[in-house]
Amino acid sequence: MDTRDRILDLAAGAKKAAGEMRSVDTARKNAALSMIAEALEADAAAIAAANAEDVAEAGKNGLAPAMVDRLTLTPSRFKSMVDGVRHVANLPDPTGETIWRREMPSGIAIEKRREPFGVVAVVFESRPNVLVDTAALCLKTGNAIILRGGKEAIRSNVALAKSVRRALASVGLPENAVSLVDFPGHEAVTELVRAVGLVDVAIPRGGERLIRAMCEAALVPVLKHYKGVCHIYVDDKADLEMALSILDNAKVQRPSACNAAECLLVHKGIADAFLPKVEEWAKRRGVTLHDDGAGVEYLSLDLNVATVSGCREAIEYVNRNGSHHSDAIVTADAERAAEFLRDVDSACVYHNASTRFTDGAEFGMGAEIGISTDKLHARGPMGLEELTTYKYVVRGDGACRN
Amino acid sequence: MDTRDRILDLAAGAKKAAGEMRSVDTARKNAALSMIAEALEADAAAIAAANAEDVAEAGKNGLAPAMVDRLTLTPSRFKSMVDGVRHVANLPDPTGETIWRREMPSGIAIEKRREPFGVVAVVFESRPNVLVDTAALCLKTGNAIILRGGKEAIRSNVALAKSVRRALASVGLPENAVSLVDFPGHEAVTELVRAVGLVDVAIPRGGERLIRAMCEAALVPVLKHYKGVCHIYVDDKADLEMALSILDNAKVQRPSACNAAECLLVHKGIADAFLPKVEEWAKRRGVTLHDDGAGVEYLSLDLNVATVSGCREAIEYVNRNGSHHSDAIVTADAERAAEFLRDVDSACVYHNASTRFTDGAEFGMGAEIGISTDKLHARGPMGLEELTTYKYVVRGDGACRN
Repeated sequence: MDTRDRILDLAAGAKKAAGEMRSVDTARKNAALSMIAEALEADAAAIAAANAEDVAEAGKNGLAPAMVDRLTLTPSRFKSMVDGVRHVANLPDPTGETIWRREMPSGIAIEKRREPFGVVAVVFESRPNVLVDTAALCLKTGNAIILRGGKEAIRSNVALAKSVRRALASVGLPENAVSLVDFPGHEAVTELVRAVGLVDVAIPRGGERLIRAMCEAALVPVLKHYKGVCHIYVDDKADLEMALSILDNAKVQRPSACNAAECLLVHKGIADAFLPKVEEWAKRRGVTLHDDGAGVEYLSLDLNVATVSGCREAIEYVNRNGSHHSDAIVTADAERAAEFLRDVDSACVYHNASTRFTDGAEFGMGAEIGISTDKLHARGPMGLEELTTYKYVVRGDGACRN
Repeated sequence: MDTRDRILDLAAGAKKAAGEMRSVDTARKNAALSMIAEALEADAAAIAAANAEDVAEAGKNGLAPAMVDRLTLTPSRFKSMVDGVRHVANLPDPTGETIWRREMPSGIAIEKRREPFGVVAVVFESRPNVLVDTAALCLKTGNAIILRGGKEAIRSNVALAKSVRRALASVGLPENAVSLVDFPGHEAVTELVRAVGLVDVAIPRGGERLIRAMCEAALVPVLKHYKGVCHIYVDDKADLEMALSILDNAKVQRPSACNAAECLLVHKGIADAFLPKVEEWAKRRGVTLHDDGAGVEYLSLDLNVATVSGCREAIEYVNRNGSHHSDAIVTADAERAAEFLRDVDSACVYHNASTRFTDGAEFGMGAEIGISTDKLHARGPMGLEELTTYKYVVRGDGACRN
């Protein structure tokens, strides 16, 4: 079989499994998640051995140390992956929920009901734990998942998928609710995102290049964020101590996160007072300041700094150079804050708070499958609810339309 | 300028207008809609003259009579178009609405707030009234709209857009909130749906060929339904009189609608009793019955008929051959109804009611911009709420993440 046929075959199996998952109640889904956590623990040694082979091979192939690090399933990463599955089991199940109900004068009763999508395709890169994290979220919402990981993690992914699928089978659920693309080739990704009617939505978990390639090829909808170029605008009405503490949190706490700040905008009226403090802070914290980095996603201890004439110019700067992810204003002026919050066209807008809060857990969603800078369906952190669609269920007593 | 530059130029203007529309309150948007209705009435003669030229030209070019009919803006169609604008002015404005609000232990207050998309691109075919209908819905939700109609309606569309834009300017709103692509060429559509960062969502209003071409080229999200292949499944526990009346409504009332029934599925246990009634009905109503039309969208007085062994086979038939639009079961058996409603993977599923109810007004949404068979963002009828996205507005008092 060529790649296209293999993918369509796999996707047809996932679609069938999704049809069966539709009638599985929450208790059975939770039992399956518990069983997956147990199976992973039981298979820990085999999984570790497979991962060690991947890591050794990556070393031989001269993979960058950062990549090898991501690939490595340390005991603590393994534990938090398994804990994550148990955590998802404890979260509320959004499917089946009634969004609204209406009785119409025509004689029909309409229920707008939350439903699984069907088949979710997740394409990810080095980190093998993404396989388990995303499978748990999809299973909880009654979806089947097709996973396609990086070729450097293939042994780890095969071992993890085997464990998860055996757990599903042991509780009488379809194994194909979790399917792994276990053969190489980039055409597999292309075929996945073109499998209209079999794949309902694709979610990339990786770098900008992967995401752009997927979107370029896609015929099925893709939920994504390309990158996070987040701004902190410090207004001339800001408490400068607060501004510095928010900047420190947003830049330094985890520079590699997509919700870390990449650009500081300073109102020109306070530039003389504030910029020396920023320089002192940067020196102390090892941050390199730039003045030519508009729109750059550093993901490191680098920060672009620019002055603006006021709130309006800050809004325009953010909308022009940002990535519509997370942007903050620090000010004591309520009107300017309202203007910034209204006119900045980003998924998450902050007043006197750090952009680092953009996260499913911090937003009270329990867990997240990713963050979206799209405007359709899901914007910002995507939790369980964002892994569902809805359906209109209409009941009548022979009702016909006039 | 080439087509790409012209479209990017137009889209940049629309994006700027969208930024301004964001701060326009509901009262001003409603005033603008009233002014548009007045302007259209004032310009009725000029619009009629432009439309007459289009119709005359279409006649000369030998356009099919059905196409010429769609193109014609009769006085009654003109009136209902203008009434539609006033109706939208009277509907509630979903933007600015708080979807939920949470105070987190970390010290942040999160508001999930409904927001305009920004720029909506609508590509339509012959009917010029679509320009005004969709512009009114987009303006009400604070969106800018870029319209691209059929070349056979170009004079009508230019006249309508001129009237609408003058009305916007007269109340101090940006004219470019309603922009018309007034130059020919299919590349214009391609460039529109590839204008990432300028166009937020594209909505086709036309036939399946147009929609497929748009989706194939698109890099921006497209909200759509390809077609409506709706089923009526008559169970052996059905009230046969009710079944016949629902079938009659679903097939005959408006056969050209996407929510009209195209296929009747009959439980084999009642085939001998029911099919003669269906044949008699078909003869009386001028309906032609087929036995080889699985998956066909007739849009005419034609109906595919098949027998199935029971509810499960009916569900599988619908999921395999249908278009995930609207499908009905007629039965007095509550369990089978629940199974059908749960397992048929369509936007709207009906129990003892006609599929013809799939419509924004019938669902209590007031108006609709279209119907979606997608599962992301909007499924089924799309009203004003479906023309919005949301944004997380987060407030703190210097809150930083631990």
